[in-house]
Amino acid sequence: MNDKPFFTPQCPSPERDEGLITLAHGGGGLLTRRLIDDVFRPAFAHNAEDLTHDGAVLEVGDTRLAFTTDSYVVKPLFFPGGDIGSMAVYGTVNDLAMCGAKPLYLSAGMVIEEGFALADLRRVVASMSRAAQVAGVRLVTGDTKVVERGKGDGIYITTSGVGQVRAPRPVAPAQIREGDAIILSGDIARHGMAVMAAREDFGFENDIASDCAPLAEPVLAMLDGEIDLHCLRDLTRGGLGTALVEIAVDGGCDLQVARSAIPVSDTVRGACEILGIDPIFVANEGRYIAIVPGGQAGSALAIMQRFEKHAAVIGEVGRPQQTGQASLTTMGGDYVLDLPTGEQLPRIC
Amino acid sequence: MNDKPFFTPQCPSPERDEGLITLAHGGGGLLTRRLIDDVFRPAFAHNAEDLTHDGAVLEVGDTRLAFTTDSYVVKPLFFPGGDIGSMAVYGTVNDLAMCGAKPLYLSAGMVIEEGFALADLRRVVASMSRAAQVAGVRLVTGDTKVVERGKGDGIYITTSGVGQVRAPRPVAPAQIREGDAIILSGDIARHGMAVMAAREDFGFENDIASDCAPLAEPVLAMLDGEIDLHCLRDLTRGGLGTALVEIAVDGGCDLQVARSAIPVSDTVRGACEILGIDPIFVANEGRYIAIVPGGQAGSALAIMQRFEKHAAVIGEVGRPQQTGQASLTTMGGDYVLDLPTGEQLPRIC
Repeated sequence: MNDKPFFTPQCPSPERDEGLITLAHGGGGLLTRRLIDDVFRPAFAHNAEDLTHDGAVLEVGDTRLAFTTDSYVVKPLFFPGGDIGSMAVYGTVNDLAMCGAKPLYLSAGMVIEEGFALADLRRVVASMSRAAQVAGVRLVTGDTKVVERGKGDGIYITTSGVGQVRAPRPVAPAQIREGDAIILSGDIARHGMAVMAAREDFGFENDIASDCAPLAEPVLAMLDGEIDLHCLRDLTRGGLGTALVEIAVDGGCDLQVARSAIPVSDTVRGACEILGIDPIFVANEGRYIAIVPGGQAGSALAIMQRFEKHAAVIGEVGRPQQTGQASLTTMGGDYVLDLPTGEQLPRIC
Repeated sequence: MNDKPFFTPQCPSPERDEGLITLAHGGGGLLTRRLIDDVFRPAFAHNAEDLTHDGAVLEVGDTRLAFTTDSYVVKPLFFPGGDIGSMAVYGTVNDLAMCGAKPLYLSAGMVIEEGFALADLRRVVASMSRAAQVAGVRLVTGDTKVVERGKGDGIYITTSGVGQVRAPRPVAPAQIREGDAIILSGDIARHGMAVMAAREDFGFENDIASDCAPLAEPVLAMLDGEIDLHCLRDLTRGGLGTALVEIAVDGGCDLQVARSAIPVSDTVRGACEILGIDPIFVANEGRYIAIVPGGQAGSALAIMQRFEKHAAVIGEVGRPQQTGQASLTTMGGDYVLDLPTGEQLPRIC
């Protein structure tokens, strides 16, 4: 497999028409970031930190809350290792965990297409209920809307979550420091490849199961172990590669990771090679990176490995820079990573 | 105009196929209630109070929080008096206010259809930003997904909200007592009729503007005035009629309201007559009822009239009953109200 990052196949050039929303605007890469920077942040942000993360940390009374939301439009609704219901619970739970918070309560807003089978709705709801139990959260409020046939695709779910912040200090890219270790929580790219394999139009089958899972337990265990969590990021849309670029830019430091240290299962690697996709840009739903002081790398890794044996130190934080870059060290040399400009696979999450 | 409640035109019988979701499941009437009772509550409710309201009241640390969510699929996106952006802000702010809470923070999850005009997105976002400013809340976190052409309808927005509960006692149907006054905050049915008039397929035009507005100020003013708010309910999907039936059933008391006391503007009344629709079942986006001890009716009304001059006492709470009923007193006699079984107008909110 070529060591240099590559991103084909992608959707047609996303910037063909500047005036219209394209699938790539939802891909988590460059156009998503531009949409946030050009449209959402000017309208809503009160300070530079606002809207840069997947969750907000807020003071209400004497309590530090984490608050987050995610919309789920995954296709197909059911895939090996998960479904839209478990994703909608774990994904939002994980965004709270990435704020250094203990997830507590969820809400769910459902947009259902007329003609959707009640049996499928029951299946999705049962999956959400199980996932909430596993993650130790309560779904306490919701809303249901129905749209006409042809104005939806079965069901879209938006979950929001509230948690109580446990981290004593901010957990954010701005906290990363030269010499910090970058630890990856397990093997990557399983969710994206599982969803692709479940799509008939990709014409290949395999037994890859999504990594969809809740991530609060290892985060809380690290906080209990007094690990100084500088930054946490789950590796959803855009995968590991996008997370590294965003943290480097937002944190103002170079990041250096080694391709050889990144765990990828043989099956996933094979499927990626067939499709010509780089696993570091494939979405995950139960993987994250933790950036911690170099001196705590060993103890943090030990805790992370209690939950997932393939957790590994994959790199470190380098020099502070005006505009930080993320680089991938490979046998062929070092490559600077870019945000993907297209959409690898629409409707992955 | 006939005094007896009537609900035509409605969509075709919603129970034609028991196994599929119909538009009426999203209408806020009988089928919505069944969906909640049969599918959502068994999966998620921890006690009988859970999921019966539009918002949840939670303890986090030492803080009593209100938490709520709503999905907005209104069609058309822009209509006289509002748009999907202002609705998505005010609607969720209002759900928090109906918990007796001061709204603080919002999140927004957007599902955008490929090909949606960026100019329209900017217009929606600008409207959300203005509405948040008016309502005194901050939009602090969000998510954007893009679905293929033909799998959405421009944009759907799910907003969630967090507020701090100010009411010293629970605000809920279970708190209503015989002799309580039922106060309506203003004239009804403007939102629903404005949206209908904005739909080309209804073939009529008029100058009705939606009542879309934030409702936290009057609620907080009543709390400051030491009004003992037994129950609050905004009159969205299903309108005043549905709210009365639900409160009667959930509160275990009969409710009696007088048709003649319910303010309806002449324009709205005329439009309702043309379409054969009863205004008490038409959706509002800036109207609510407050149920307060009879002895406080005068002072509560005075506060509500500071914000909207047409606020009026429309009825009172009657005897406790195993299954409470809501009745409408008209010149032709008393009529027991039922939850609407069909969908008056899909995609009203």
